[in-house]
Amino acid sequence: MGIVLGPNRYGKAQVRVVHVVRDGDRHTLRDLDVRTALAGDLAATHLTGDNSQVLPTDSQKNTVYAFARKHGVASPEAFALLLARHFVHSQPAVRRAEVAVREFGWQRLGQHSFQRGGAETRTATATYDGETARVVSGLTDLVLLNTTNSEFHGFVRDEYTTLPETTDRILATAVDARWRHLDADADWDAAHRQVREALVAAFVETYSRSLQQTLYAMGRRVLEARPEVAEIRLSLPNRHHIPVDLSPFGLDNPNAVFVATDQPYGVIEGTVGRDGVAPADGDW
Amino acid sequence: MGIVLGPNRYGKAQVRVVHVVRDGDRHTLRDLDVRTALAGDLAATHLTGDNSQVLPTDSQKNTVYAFARKHGVASPEAFALLLARHFVHSQPAVRRAEVAVREFGWQRLGQHSFQRGGAETRTATATYDGETARVVSGLTDLVLLNTTNSEFHGFVRDEYTTLPETTDRILATAVDARWRHLDADADWDAAHRQVREALVAAFVETYSRSLQQTLYAMGRRVLEARPEVAEIRLSLPNRHHIPVDLSPFGLDNPNAVFVATDQPYGVIEGTVGRDGVAPADGDW
Amino acid sequence: MGIVLGPNRYGKAQVRVVHVVRDGDRHTLRDLDVRTALAGDLAATHLTGDNSQVLPTDSQKNTVYAFARKHGVASPEAFALLLARHFVHSQPAVRRAEVAVREFGWQRLGQHSFQRGGAETRTATATYDGETARVVSGLTDLVLLNTTNSEFHGFVRDEYTTLPETTDRILATAVDARWRHLDADADWDAAHRQVREALVAAFVETYSRSLQQTLYAMGRRVLEARPEVAEIRLSLPNRHHIPVDLSPFGLDNPNAVFVATDQPYGVIEGTVGRDGVAPADGDW
Amino acid sequence: MGIVLGPNRYGKAQVRVVHVVRDGDRHTLRDLDVRTALAGDLAATHLTGDNSQVLPTDSQKNTVYAFARKHGVASPEAFALLLARHFVHSQPAVRRAEVAVREFGWQRLGQHSFQRGGAETRTATATYDGETARVVSGLTDLVLLNTTNSEFHGFVRDEYTTLPETTDRILATAVDARWRHLDADADWDAAHRQVREALVAAFVETYSRSLQQTLYAMGRRVLEARPEVAEIRLSLPNRHHIPVDLSPFGLDNPNAVFVATDQPYGVIEGTVGRDGVAPADGDW
Repeated sequence: MGIVLGPNRYGKAQVRVVHVVRDGDRHTLRDLDVRTALAGDLAATHLTGDNSQVLPTDSQKNTVYAFARKHGVASPEAFALLLARHFVHSQPAVRRAEVAVREFGWQRLGQHSFQRGGAETRTATATYDGETARVVSGLTDLVLLNTTNSEFHGFVRDEYTTLPETTDRILATAVDARWRHLDADADWDAAHRQVREALVAAFVETYSRSLQQTLYAMGRRVLEARPEVAEIRLSLPNRHHIPVDLSPFGLDNPNAVFVATDQPYGVIEGTVGRDGVAPADGDW
Repeated sequence: MGIVLGPNRYGKAQVRVVHVVRDGDRHTLRDLDVRTALAGDLAATHLTGDNSQVLPTDSQKNTVYAFARKHGVASPEAFALLLARHFVHSQPAVRRAEVAVREFGWQRLGQHSFQRGGAETRTATATYDGETARVVSGLTDLVLLNTTNSEFHGFVRDEYTTLPETTDRILATAVDARWRHLDADADWDAAHRQVREALVAAFVETYSRSLQQTLYAMGRRVLEARPEVAEIRLSLPNRHHIPVDLSPFGLDNPNAVFVATDQPYGVIEGTVGRDGVAPADGDW
Repeated sequence: MGIVLGPNRYGKAQVRVVHVVRDGDRHTLRDLDVRTALAGDLAATHLTGDNSQVLPTDSQKNTVYAFARKHGVASPEAFALLLARHFVHSQPAVRRAEVAVREFGWQRLGQHSFQRGGAETRTATATYDGETARVVSGLTDLVLLNTTNSEFHGFVRDEYTTLPETTDRILATAVDARWRHLDADADWDAAHRQVREALVAAFVETYSRSLQQTLYAMGRRVLEARPEVAEIRLSLPNRHHIPVDLSPFGLDNPNAVFVATDQPYGVIEGTVGRDGVAPADGDW
Repeated sequence: MGIVLGPNRYGKAQVRVVHVVRDGDRHTLRDLDVRTALAGDLAATHLTGDNSQVLPTDSQKNTVYAFARKHGVASPEAFALLLARHFVHSQPAVRRAEVAVREFGWQRLGQHSFQRGGAETRTATATYDGETARVVSGLTDLVLLNTTNSEFHGFVRDEYTTLPETTDRILATAVDARWRHLDADADWDAAHRQVREALVAAFVETYSRSLQQTLYAMGRRVLEARPEVAEIRLSLPNRHHIPVDLSPFGLDNPNAVFVATDQPYGVIEGTVGRDGVAPADGDW
């Protein structure tokens, strides 16, 4: 059996660009981390080190900065699309480009002053293959917590089960969500805002008997709110908050004092989609 | 020359406690990371492994949880003071206790629902030696950015200087501040809020010719606003945002497109105090 | 279009288990981070919060510890296989289990004394669906550097290209490799050692005209050395070391002084496989 | 009470320099992270933004690279001393310079090939005030573990103590050590190697009744081995490895299966010095 080169791609990661728009004294900024990944006719550089089809990752980085100046940054999605199309259209060897953007939020403090928001990060990935553009939006590290309205009982008890049932627990998670759009055109900022609101509202309002139930409610709420979303993938860590046993000290603990643990943690992953909508090709 | 044991202390770090208060349907929570450090008559355990004067760090941890239940968490400062005094008063061998608390912020989403705030962390350190209690409050990772009103020129040019002068640059930093109180009694939450507001206001409003000037303005504003603050120490990284040279691509760059760099970075450290107020003993 | 639940799974992450074997005075240890992920008939918990098919993630964690005691940890691969098979065989609702193990290395200092190795981590993922077991081995964060024998030139120059060509540069990367085995039975420790040696040898011995060429050489070397490896996936960041321009200071720089940058970085990803070997189902 | 500027300093952090020496085909490299901090007549820039006494941190960075080329990097200590003296001697406003170096280790794989070592980092800090040079060497993140020969009992039991006594436990720590030299001249590489060997040997060979006892033994061993070391400061986290209670599953656990926890952790800090040697001025 001969040895062969399989799927491959290359690009630049952590291209950090801050774009400032000055509307008189009032400034706005967008703060992005861009990652490019190009695939196509790249066998020669792998097999022989012939780089005649290789656009340097340094040039890809330069393109990000030049495009920010030429076209501005209307939204992470629009900027990613522009770049993905550019690489495929301008480079004969490139058959497919994926551009992934992470946007860091800043809250306005004044005309030209800002404060970095939390760990929550907005994401957008655009893929283009010369024919079809696909856009996946998302967010990560949105940390949510309910102090009540969460139960967990009625589960399987096997020989290794020691977990007590509970009808009142803290439920805390760091939302990692990605949603695929049916079209590559939208008011991306408004769409993001509304999906985010749906996710938060569903987490807050769902009386939860399992984190899976909460996950499905969050996904369902998004698809109800935004008809252009084809499907949503959620990964929800279960950040366990464990009531401390204070009885050795003669104290009760009516769900007042908890240890916030960082490991181990549960991980609930699930997709919510639409009946009759074909899944996208490949991984996203 | 004989070999001798010098200064020493021990305790527990990263004791993560979440305290929930239920006022009918409306819940509030405080989310703390507590660190204890006890010093005193500890030579025996070092020299011979005799632990008869050693309160286990595990017991110190348990005390944190029990105290959260017994006394609640009025504020990081008050909770740290309670614990520091307890260890000195209850343990004959303990001559000095330092309890450091980091508080993670949560924004309210509903009656019992919360969203984690940003990286910004509130800090409080209480030290007690049996006679005097000292409280140092602080905050870390408050990331601020001005897109203009920052210059840097007129500096020394030695043989290794290549930096161009600038009359308009982005100024960005992650504020790390600690302020020492004259007294060990205050409305700690209100005090923290007002110091934070003073820091932010001074950063936003100062037309800056150096980050040192901004640092001093921030410290001065705090001392003007809060007479009970004896001194404030600020450590301000200069998170460089470098305008990209787009001229190779036939583009200008009127302070529109920047590389956000993470290393190297400048570090400006300084203290602002009051004339005639003696510095505190030791490090803080 | 109705809203439907799509693919989903759940499990426990960061289950940290240290297993010590005592052969007289000579101890050995294995230090693992285990992650479980179960899939199957889980619609009820998502749709209605009915947990009657849900084995708690806490029980999955307990199983890891109990199995370490019952069966020992012969290797990450063998341990992952044991667990994956157990969950499918013992839980009627579980159709597919994936168990991923990361092993942290320790170097022996004495009969019962050890020093933690570097950031390099050994990985193993076992998947079982009731019929077929698949094993993927790997390693991450193996950081390698050549100070010479690396060139990069003859690449595409588009309008955004400014990178100079070079015939002598530092080549540095952090190897992230995963290789899929044809069979679910092997001397896993020996196999891992030999694959690792092949990766390192190929990096050291390849005169490189692109990191892609080095990647392919590394993959090829592994497949030549180990006939039971079906394919290998490599992700190689290009950790740029940039020669400092010292000419403003009247100094030359014959590849002596470099800035080690952490961002941005190139990312080269590729698969090397065997002609006629079908790819595995799904992602791995 | 007037508001006054107190102690202050400034510099550049995370200046990452890799220096390669080519001795024919055999290359060696040193990989450093340098931090500078200058203090002196800096009131003007704080109070009025007058930078006429400010050497830019960018120039400090350039100096690091130029000095690597001009003088090479004989050792972290020697390089830090060169830089500290330079800033004080060349800048009239600078009264005191501190240069802190972290060195990342690389293991040789071939004539010009290297593999990054572990997390362990060598450190060196040189301080110069125009008269006296002080050198502090150190290391961080040296992770050591004994599977036995560690006890912990006979400790204080207060009302919050629940910890069981143990005569056999895992003892694991990540050594963070700094030692101050009596003189600013030594064979720094040999000195570092010998101190490190003393630390490791004492950890391995000490039958431990408390981590404090181990700490003192480590410090004592260093001072016995190296007469030019004035004192050593050790900070040792106690990385708890907790035996898992497997009795619910009908299994015993004779110190075979442990949970490796990351938080909370104990912290033991102590100094070992010489009788009659005055402590150094200020913090180090």
